[in-house]
Amino acid sequence: MRAKPLHGIRILDLTRFLAGPYATMLLADLGAEVVKVEAPEGGDPARRNGPFVHGVSTYFLSVNRGKKSITCNLKEARGRDLFLRLVDHADAVVENYRPGVMRALGLDWPVLRERNARLIYAACSGFGQTGPLAQRAAYDLVVQAMGGTVSVTGTPGGEPVRVGYSIGDLAGGMFTAMGLLAALIERGNSGRGQFLDVSMMDCQVALLENAVARYFATGEVAGPLGTKHPVVTPIQAYPTGDGYIVLAIGEERQWQRFCRVAGVAHLLTDPRFQEKNARTAHREELDEILRSLTAQRTTAEWTQLLEPTGIAYGEINRINEVVAHPQIQARGMIAEVPVGDGQETARLVASPMKLSETPVGPDAGPPALGEHNRTYYQELLGLSAEPCAELRQAGII
Amino acid sequence: MRAKPLHGIRILDLTRFLAGPYATMLLADLGAEVVKVEAPEGGDPARRNGPFVHGVSTYFLSVNRGKKSITCNLKEARGRDLFLRLVDHADAVVENYRPGVMRALGLDWPVLRERNARLIYAACSGFGQTGPLAQRAAYDLVVQAMGGTVSVTGTPGGEPVRVGYSIGDLAGGMFTAMGLLAALIERGNSGRGQFLDVSMMDCQVALLENAVARYFATGEVAGPLGTKHPVVTPIQAYPTGDGYIVLAIGEERQWQRFCRVAGVAHLLTDPRFQEKNARTAHREELDEILRSLTAQRTTAEWTQLLEPTGIAYGEINRINEVVAHPQIQARGMIAEVPVGDGQETARLVASPMKLSETPVGPDAGPPALGEHNRTYYQELLGLSAEPCAELRQAGII
Repeated sequence: MRAKPLHGIRILDLTRFLAGPYATMLLADLGAEVVKVEAPEGGDPARRNGPFVHGVSTYFLSVNRGKKSITCNLKEARGRDLFLRLVDHADAVVENYRPGVMRALGLDWPVLRERNARLIYAACSGFGQTGPLAQRAAYDLVVQAMGGTVSVTGTPGGEPVRVGYSIGDLAGGMFTAMGLLAALIERGNSGRGQFLDVSMMDCQVALLENAVARYFATGEVAGPLGTKHPVVTPIQAYPTGDGYIVLAIGEERQWQRFCRVAGVAHLLTDPRFQEKNARTAHREELDEILRSLTAQRTTAEWTQLLEPTGIAYGEINRINEVVAHPQIQARGMIAEVPVGDGQETARLVASPMKLSETPVGPDAGPPALGEHNRTYYQELLGLSAEPCAELRQAGII
Repeated sequence: MRAKPLHGIRILDLTRFLAGPYATMLLADLGAEVVKVEAPEGGDPARRNGPFVHGVSTYFLSVNRGKKSITCNLKEARGRDLFLRLVDHADAVVENYRPGVMRALGLDWPVLRERNARLIYAACSGFGQTGPLAQRAAYDLVVQAMGGTVSVTGTPGGEPVRVGYSIGDLAGGMFTAMGLLAALIERGNSGRGQFLDVSMMDCQVALLENAVARYFATGEVAGPLGTKHPVVTPIQAYPTGDGYIVLAIGEERQWQRFCRVAGVAHLLTDPRFQEKNARTAHREELDEILRSLTAQRTTAEWTQLLEPTGIAYGEINRINEVVAHPQIQARGMIAEVPVGDGQETARLVASPMKLSETPVGPDAGPPALGEHNRTYYQELLGLSAEPCAELRQAGII
């Protein structure tokens, strides 16, 4: 097998909490050498978010597996100098500070570019580097709410609901990783790096692509629809005799097949339900008919009935069912990495990017704070042991 | 300015509906030349999903802007041969058929690799190319349900709820684009392409990273929590006198500041609420206290109170508010592209990947079916007009 796809790419990672660390985790899984640069006192605050497994934060371990950690106090001149020397050896810097923090440290893009013209600088922030809200604080829920996601999720008239995973952070991280990869490709042509500015709020709007296009076309302001699809019907969860089943019938052929196997062939000649746009227009009426139909069988009975038909359907799995699911097991989606003193392990989600010729991680656990100081300060920069000990003593590293 | 980051990368795009088209849309925005290869009869079925603007499907236009379209009947030997000739000139093929369809067409990875060793083949499917469910049909809602997303979204004890945008499809598309970019970088070293296998269900599990890590660490099966964050408190939406406000208080300093400005400084000495993990353990009690507090002021009053504090908060915006938001406007997140005969335009969401030195799209509308046949069949492959007309007549292109 060939080396991992990003083998030889070194990233200085100043990120904390979730959005930035998720970006660099994706890149580490793909083989980049991600060097987390952390404050000597405590490091990434996420290290202190519970619950803990073998003394390690699950919040931290999940998105920091496979990275290196060095300590560096960027507020001190000597720390800043060490960081700049590392920049000479790096392909990219990634940070998710509030805009302006890196400038205050004297480490913003104009400074780093001077130092290394090939460097890519990726910044992921709540609202972006520009615009009236650039300085506002953001968290996942804030961008889910302000970016429109909460307004389309949930049940009509119900309490506000967030997406159950932190998609505000995670989408910011994904677009940061993707933009950085594109900039690496471009550097192959131009020989030069550039600045990537990703706003978590922008990323939510990007995911609302269909609702935005519909709004501009029709003036319709999308709202929460439970499990219903906004424009294709019937796609939703239906109650069964003992739970739920989701049906996703997007094509006419599937609709015809469903009506026949479910014993409601008469719906096929009903003009309200004959064609997919008509079904969406009459979805409340169809909903009532199908709900009383699906309630007559158990989830298992529906599964048995639908499995041979090729109709898209499924059960609603909880986390314990998902991780034990034969498909997720067969896909190798659960990885095990060493944690703590290396005697213990923790299980977590593997990368969903399965490549045929190159391995993809994770294959190491999360780093202890400053675990790799020696590698980078002594081996890479050539400092000897004594000044390193002094820097440590002085709280610089 | 330098050329777009993926300038010079040509992608043959066999994708339909949403997951695959979103992947290639991201790549087209980044400057790849994406050539949609569509069936002569009707093309991508998404072209027929309403609502329509100036005769173009909003569903289709949103994720196909900036692409080229050629027609090619892959079920006919002559169509297959034309496609293989195009593969000679391509960097990547992307498809989101059910596994096995490309093999049946004689166009699977082993065949295409023979033809072009540098080709990257990216396949995005509901459950992946391997495993017991590989052949099962999938739609967004099915993978949101089976992948665990529905189980953590919504209100405790409430009806099932999906994420209001099609994150099942979109995450599949994002990881497909990301994996393809990584494979392009790797090709720069090895000179060879590879096969990328992305499962939409895997991608949902990847986004559940925190819930999965917690489950393995503690056995806790996450459930829906409304707008509450699973491990950091208080992060949630609270009712105000006239609506809602979301608060996201993740750090101790912010908690102290909030309690002081909100007039509840006595909570700071309450051992149940003094530290973030303690607050999570007592979140129901805290919830009750804060709900009665927030209801005493309007959303505007809370905004005025919180804005100077640096505490992360926000309003819940609907789609019309999001697209008109000064921040989204300032970020250039709404783009306008020509549609139909080119006299009309449609507005849609721009790319959230803002690069300093290279432009990022969209800067063209969605293609009409077969609009670029001449470019690729005559100009690229060198066919002359007469055989092209004959191929058209015969339903091959």
